[in-house]
Amino acid sequence: MAISKGAINVRSIFIGGEEPCICAPVVGVDAEQVLAETRQISAKKPHLIEWRADFFNGIHDDRQVVATAKEIRTIAGDIPILFTVRSEREGGRPIPLTEEEKMRLFETVCQSGAIDLLDYELVHEPYVATVRQLSRQYGVRLILSYHNFDFTPAKEELVAKMRQAGKYGADIAKVAVMPKSLQDVLVLLQATEEARQELPIPLITMSMGGLGAITRLAGGLFGSAVTFAVGQQSSAPGQIPIEEVKDVLSVIMKYSQ
Amino acid sequence: MAISKGAINVRSIFIGGEEPCICAPVVGVDAEQVLAETRQISAKKPHLIEWRADFFNGIHDDRQVVATAKEIRTIAGDIPILFTVRSEREGGRPIPLTEEEKMRLFETVCQSGAIDLLDYELVHEPYVATVRQLSRQYGVRLILSYHNFDFTPAKEELVAKMRQAGKYGADIAKVAVMPKSLQDVLVLLQATEEARQELPIPLITMSMGGLGAITRLAGGLFGSAVTFAVGQQSSAPGQIPIEEVKDVLSVIMKYSQ
Repeated sequence: MAISKGAINVRSIFIGGEEPCICAPVVGVDAEQVLAETRQISAKKPHLIEWRADFFNGIHDDRQVVATAKEIRTIAGDIPILFTVRSEREGGRPIPLTEEEKMRLFETVCQSGAIDLLDYELVHEPYVATVRQLSRQYGVRLILSYHNFDFTPAKEELVAKMRQAGKYGADIAKVAVMPKSLQDVLVLLQATEEARQELPIPLITMSMGGLGAITRLAGGLFGSAVTFAVGQQSSAPGQIPIEEVKDVLSVIMKYSQ
Repeated sequence: MAISKGAINVRSIFIGGEEPCICAPVVGVDAEQVLAETRQISAKKPHLIEWRADFFNGIHDDRQVVATAKEIRTIAGDIPILFTVRSEREGGRPIPLTEEEKMRLFETVCQSGAIDLLDYELVHEPYVATVRQLSRQYGVRLILSYHNFDFTPAKEELVAKMRQAGKYGADIAKVAVMPKSLQDVLVLLQATEEARQELPIPLITMSMGGLGAITRLAGGLFGSAVTFAVGQQSSAPGQIPIEEVKDVLSVIMKYSQ
């Protein structure tokens, strides 16, 4: 696999290389579900596994989280693990942690060595520097993200979000927005294309829902380094099963230059 | 299959309905090759077959052309036949016919009842009204087309070409252009989306070459009613084999709303 400028190497994979990576979310509510899902998903060989820990009912207990993360790590083998506690205001489940408590949880999880990447939302601006510092300290890559489940902001605003992620030292910038029209879907692809020209870090972008589903297949051409696909259960509207994403990506990669 | 506003019914298919149609070109140089290709292609069940008669070395002889068209018709069964003599200045092969001679050939072929659709380039403006009149007289649908193998004009110009096709009474407007960047690919998709909002006729659009190959897969979402795919031999850069186009379209149609 050829490696583009700005590609990052995590375990055996390259994020931001010539080929888009497929990431499958794990959304179980308890350790049993989480581990069963991880087993089923690992068998489908995604490039990345995201543990959406906001779904986990033991999220308030650092020890439970770390123990489960370590078990995920063991099952997933060499597949990099992305740890995400998606904020409720950006589409996640309600959790009983304050941002300060989340910082402590992040530190404990990063320190455990069980995870490779951490996702945090740009919207929590006062905490971003702390998350950058603690993730860097433990060699965990940071995705700084922006989600909008209501609409698609203007192209310039989307590019600005990715630029902001870069300024805060993100290893990867992520933007996930909801389209109201096909025009919005094209705006997301344009913003991706422009940000790729400008920024030296890999990007992850998508237009959500059925209207934006095409961006989960074609986004890689325009600069999105990772597409989220359903391993066992979807974590956001518009996600397509891994098997079908793989089939389509192989055709797109074969004929696109 | 649901039918959109402006869809046209040709034999058993709808062009401009919910599903994009696949059209496979026949590019043989003599009757034997043309008929062998038609047999192989028909077995792959494209929605449409295009006879690119500018490749045919009997193009100067109306009787040979009509006899071959009738044999294509027999082999293709109920698959609609599109008859195209692509002009050299728009990417076709050199042929020994003047535009006046082409008019007579068109009339003979339309009259034969062997074809369902005729493609003619907007660039031959003085002859467009004649082609519209003779095709209408014999119940043949007319595609008025614009090709640019050098670059992608601005979005407004692409929409203007489709509008012009509509003004000349085209049943379908076609635009095929060469991208120099991914930005050009998005311009073609934007122009398609805008023209679909504005015009009451089906559109066929594509961005050519490897850079534009994605438009042959995803163009249907933005308003392109037909995608050209390789049955036996490609007729333009960037075309993808029918089987792979079918697989990808089935995934796109399943998850896009």
